[in-house]
Amino acid sequence: MRPLTLAAALGVSSLALGIGSARAEEGMWTFDNFPIAAANRLLGTNIDQAWLDRVRLSSVRFGGCSAGLVSGEGLILTNNHCVASCVANLSTQAVNYAATGFTPATREEELKCPGGTAEILTEITDVTARMQAAGEGLSGQAFTQARAAEAGRIESEGCGGDPTLRCQVVTLYRGGQFKLYTYRRYTDVRLAFAPEDRAATFGGDLDNFSFPRFSIDAAFIRIYENDAPVQTPIHFTWNADQPVEGTPVFVSGSPGATQRLLTMDQLLTVRDVMLPLDQLIASELRGRLIRFSQESEENAFIAMDPIVGLENTYKRGLGRMRALVDPQFMAMKSEQEADFRRRHRDAANASDPWAALSAVQPIQRELYAPYTLLETRAGGGSLHFAWARTLVRAAQEREKPSAERLPEFADSRLSAVQSSLFAERPTYPALEQVYLEWWLSKTREWLTVDDPRVQALLGKESPEALSARLVAGSTLADPAVRRALWEGGLAAIEASDDPMIQYVLLIQDETRAVRSEWEEKVQGPTDRASEALAAARFEIYGDSVYPDATGTLRLTYGRIEGSDVPGQRWGAFTTFGGLWDRATGAAPFDVAPRLLAARERIDPGTVLNMAVSSDTIGGSSGSPVVNAAGEIVGANFDSTVLTQRNAYGYDRNVNRSVIVTTGAVTVALRDVYGMDRLVTELGVD
Amino acid sequence: MRPLTLAAALGVSSLALGIGSARAEEGMWTFDNFPIAAANRLLGTNIDQAWLDRVRLSSVRFGGCSAGLVSGEGLILTNNHCVASCVANLSTQAVNYAATGFTPATREEELKCPGGTAEILTEITDVTARMQAAGEGLSGQAFTQARAAEAGRIESEGCGGDPTLRCQVVTLYRGGQFKLYTYRRYTDVRLAFAPEDRAATFGGDLDNFSFPRFSIDAAFIRIYENDAPVQTPIHFTWNADQPVEGTPVFVSGSPGATQRLLTMDQLLTVRDVMLPLDQLIASELRGRLIRFSQESEENAFIAMDPIVGLENTYKRGLGRMRALVDPQFMAMKSEQEADFRRRHRDAANASDPWAALSAVQPIQRELYAPYTLLETRAGGGSLHFAWARTLVRAAQEREKPSAERLPEFADSRLSAVQSSLFAERPTYPALEQVYLEWWLSKTREWLTVDDPRVQALLGKESPEALSARLVAGSTLADPAVRRALWEGGLAAIEASDDPMIQYVLLIQDETRAVRSEWEEKVQGPTDRASEALAAARFEIYGDSVYPDATGTLRLTYGRIEGSDVPGQRWGAFTTFGGLWDRATGAAPFDVAPRLLAARERIDPGTVLNMAVSSDTIGGSSGSPVVNAAGEIVGANFDSTVLTQRNAYGYDRNVNRSVIVTTGAVTVALRDVYGMDRLVTELGVD
Repeated sequence: MRPLTLAAALGVSSLALGIGSARAEEGMWTFDNFPIAAANRLLGTNIDQAWLDRVRLSSVRFGGCSAGLVSGEGLILTNNHCVASCVANLSTQAVNYAATGFTPATREEELKCPGGTAEILTEITDVTARMQAAGEGLSGQAFTQARAAEAGRIESEGCGGDPTLRCQVVTLYRGGQFKLYTYRRYTDVRLAFAPEDRAATFGGDLDNFSFPRFSIDAAFIRIYENDAPVQTPIHFTWNADQPVEGTPVFVSGSPGATQRLLTMDQLLTVRDVMLPLDQLIASELRGRLIRFSQESEENAFIAMDPIVGLENTYKRGLGRMRALVDPQFMAMKSEQEADFRRRHRDAANASDPWAALSAVQPIQRELYAPYTLLETRAGGGSLHFAWARTLVRAAQEREKPSAERLPEFADSRLSAVQSSLFAERPTYPALEQVYLEWWLSKTREWLTVDDPRVQALLGKESPEALSARLVAGSTLADPAVRRALWEGGLAAIEASDDPMIQYVLLIQDETRAVRSEWEEKVQGPTDRASEALAAARFEIYGDSVYPDATGTLRLTYGRIEGSDVPGQRWGAFTTFGGLWDRATGAAPFDVAPRLLAARERIDPGTVLNMAVSSDTIGGSSGSPVVNAAGEIVGANFDSTVLTQRNAYGYDRNVNRSVIVTTGAVTVALRDVYGMDRLVTELGVD
Repeated sequence: MRPLTLAAALGVSSLALGIGSARAEEGMWTFDNFPIAAANRLLGTNIDQAWLDRVRLSSVRFGGCSAGLVSGEGLILTNNHCVASCVANLSTQAVNYAATGFTPATREEELKCPGGTAEILTEITDVTARMQAAGEGLSGQAFTQARAAEAGRIESEGCGGDPTLRCQVVTLYRGGQFKLYTYRRYTDVRLAFAPEDRAATFGGDLDNFSFPRFSIDAAFIRIYENDAPVQTPIHFTWNADQPVEGTPVFVSGSPGATQRLLTMDQLLTVRDVMLPLDQLIASELRGRLIRFSQESEENAFIAMDPIVGLENTYKRGLGRMRALVDPQFMAMKSEQEADFRRRHRDAANASDPWAALSAVQPIQRELYAPYTLLETRAGGGSLHFAWARTLVRAAQEREKPSAERLPEFADSRLSAVQSSLFAERPTYPALEQVYLEWWLSKTREWLTVDDPRVQALLGKESPEALSARLVAGSTLADPAVRRALWEGGLAAIEASDDPMIQYVLLIQDETRAVRSEWEEKVQGPTDRASEALAAARFEIYGDSVYPDATGTLRLTYGRIEGSDVPGQRWGAFTTFGGLWDRATGAAPFDVAPRLLAARERIDPGTVLNMAVSSDTIGGSSGSPVVNAAGEIVGANFDSTVLTQRNAYGYDRNVNRSVIVTTGAVTVALRDVYGMDRLVTELGVD
């Protein structure tokens, strides 16, 4: 291949390259380009392509999380926090599975997760040529749209409307490669086991993104078809042995997004403009929700899951802020960029993607606030708003040919949109009100009262009064109403007197204009320059490097290992005995009641959580942790706050993932929650 | 003088210098070093030393604000937001002067502001030699303490315990000069007039730090002695004429603090570590308080003033964040520093204060969170906590000789401590609870659960439970209890069973250790290096430059002027007619009822607010704006959000102060609030 040849011509060793190359344990690799030899050499293992195929077919994507098949009857291990929304949706204040755990005595009592979808990656096909041809000679929004349209066509052709499949054109190397990923898709996902929430969240937000940890952050789901468990002969073997430090491990999951090719100029925009806005407004919402949850037991119940999610995102942002103001880390990034630019000058033609990206930054700094507030965060978390926007935009877009639509409404994506839209989900008017007030007031604050878009948003109403009017009048909580509006198309939408629908219709011009401007002036030019950057990287380093994470299936590798750097010094393991020691009795350091009651039955020396050195990022949650024999030994559920810098660059010294062991999960099932039927299913003696 | 000679020797023009020199309109000058000739030349005015003396003696410091004498009977104009705490303290939910305005029909109905103090600067004496000698040869905490002790001695000698005087050693040029400021002090300050709060806060937080504005942010207080108004023959003449664009003006007030000598390294610490922490936790408190205030009318009343104060601080911080991430502004600062360093290398010996300050930064980055959370923000705003800490520390410190105490408890400062401590102030347990929960939980979050200081702070209690226990049990709301504890000294403190007192006692070791470490490793070295920097600056530029603002009386100058830069384009004036146009009826854009009722009596062309170009910073609030004849034409009440960069460097292009005109105040008194007796007292026909 051309890139490899050039790399070889430059005499570049793939293990000592600086930015482009993967150093030991670095990299979130695709399954069709995993560095088998390098990994085997480093770890002393002996994996091969058949091993990779089996691991891939045992790996599951579940919502924004990862998971792994662990029995022949569709049983899947993931994190408890990955099923938290499901648990919340299945609970009421009276029957609150977050408080009690969800421990169905029989398989028949396993309950369907509203809107839950599980997917297994069955095929990877290269579609680079088609995708690159589609954007040829175009720029700005035309470029973005042409690419999106071509992706839509490829996806439609690939899956042809089969609801059991999902086709996704995946952008790798920031446009250097495009692959069509085909998934087997399961929409009947049932909750098979969840522990008491506190057993999973011991230490709460305070222990989140840290180690040592003491969390049984594990749960099981099961995929069904035609009301019967799916037969899954290919699955991980359950290995509940005590883990041993230094053991090589592989982590298979769908890490969400890294941005390791961001230029220094781009990183400064993230540091100076994007993260501060994100974090400051999240912090205010956090304050509002904390106080809201203190107002009544009902509010505490309603707000629990939203607060956990918000605090998780917020703390991840803090870790990223810390990376971007860490002089050492930024010096490393700067040196890597300088090295890359020097090699690029030496090796390539006159293209300068860095300059193109620099030119975008002032515009991005200017447009980020309106774009994020009016488009990506519109509604502030209100489900009614989100449903209304989906309904309004889908109706408007479906009037056009698929290729001309907003990409999320291409024909190939409509069935996923519908299944999410029609899923039963409880909504809480009081919480909707909090979200909408916050969103409207922060939008007004950041864009200013004098911004015509803000005036369109609010008219003469206050954020509070407008929110109250929309929430009180909306009937979208009823899935039948949503379905009728979907099926009625644009005529039904325009005729609707639902105030939320009418409101979303009212603000379409302004919000669509903001999105168009962003795509035209920021996203389009950035995509094109990033693609040139990725091409330059290929020229120099070849695909001996890995692509940024994109929420698709990857394999990482490393060892079970503690940490010994400032602010992060600890061994590789924690035990149940450590949990009893850390407990104070006051939330969030109170041990879950059923877990506490089982204390005498549990060997205090049993390893509970462990740290591993594999490259990681959010979205890896629930990822199966697999040994060289392909057996599952744990589930990734977290990483440390210092590790959040992984978004921008791999730092082997601080990088640690946090794992709940299969041993601890076995203890929970057998000794705490009476789930012996699952223990048997897992094949534990 | 030495510095001038050197500057002359280097051929440096004082109007074209870069960092050190004052460019047109730049500078917050002391009254004993005002550039009379330069200002007269620039503005075409003819002020002299007698003019300066009269303006100084008509200028008043009131709390953290500025103000001006406007009649011979102790009447003082300041901003309404400067009396907001007084109004809140005098109000109940039933009789809420913030809602109705405070419009006493007779002078006898003017009400005393609890804890209110007004001061007039009567004398300035140079004490540089004594102060510099005191620190000679010392470093770290010993240096800090020796300086503080000497300041205490100088202040005691200067004022000799006279309660009608206050002596303050003022550090200028970051230790380049020390001056003893002697103030005539008035502790019976009564509220003479306040408009409806909404008349002053029209537009609320959204219009705060912006222009055009439509705020009657003005109020009157009056100083009393022996229950009679103080006779004040020296005062400003009231000039309520329509203002004219381009008119030269002078602003006399006590700008709080600028940090224009911060090195680039120090600015990065502010940008990367200090402001993010400050802003993020403030944002969460804001969310908690907003929700709290929505819970009941009582809570709305309680939280109004705290929210206004918090939002003001938060937005100022936003303006500062924006300055420090503005590539142009930072390039300007960087160039100025490079110029200064080059001149310093050319002109001076081998000292390198920049390197010394660089060496402090990693330590400051590390220690800022514990220092600010455990010391400067301890209690989170809880009045009970603040009282308890004052009582505990004063009792502990008073056991030592004055020179060995924490500086705030030197003999010379005890009377001010007492008058603040014994003042009647309402407290609200629910609000105390919000503050304490927030403070304890944020401290735990930022320092982590595993920090021994956090463990000392919380023991096995949750922030919520601990706060509830302290608030429920404390009796410090009663001033008599506070007075008894003060008078009982350490024995009474230790014997007290007040849980807040006991709690503060319990955490003294940890919090004092944090403070000591900060003073030893950060404040001491910073002060010494900053002094060397200031000395270097003197060497080069002389006192043709102005010292950083320090909350003491300064005079600035400029013109009435609009603005024409991106994000800030407008004329110099707004009118009452503009107010009616902007009103929507929905808070905060609802016109105050009494003001609205007077609409027909008010000429819509009357200027309401205006912008002026004089150098400004927070603390200038309430500053008299004076014309060349020494007549008062307005009161400074705000500046724009872009102007917040003034903290770090003067930027003439964006710098604008926002002024409420005497004409608008006259309209309010006469046509809206029926305060004809004040109109007469002001000498308006």
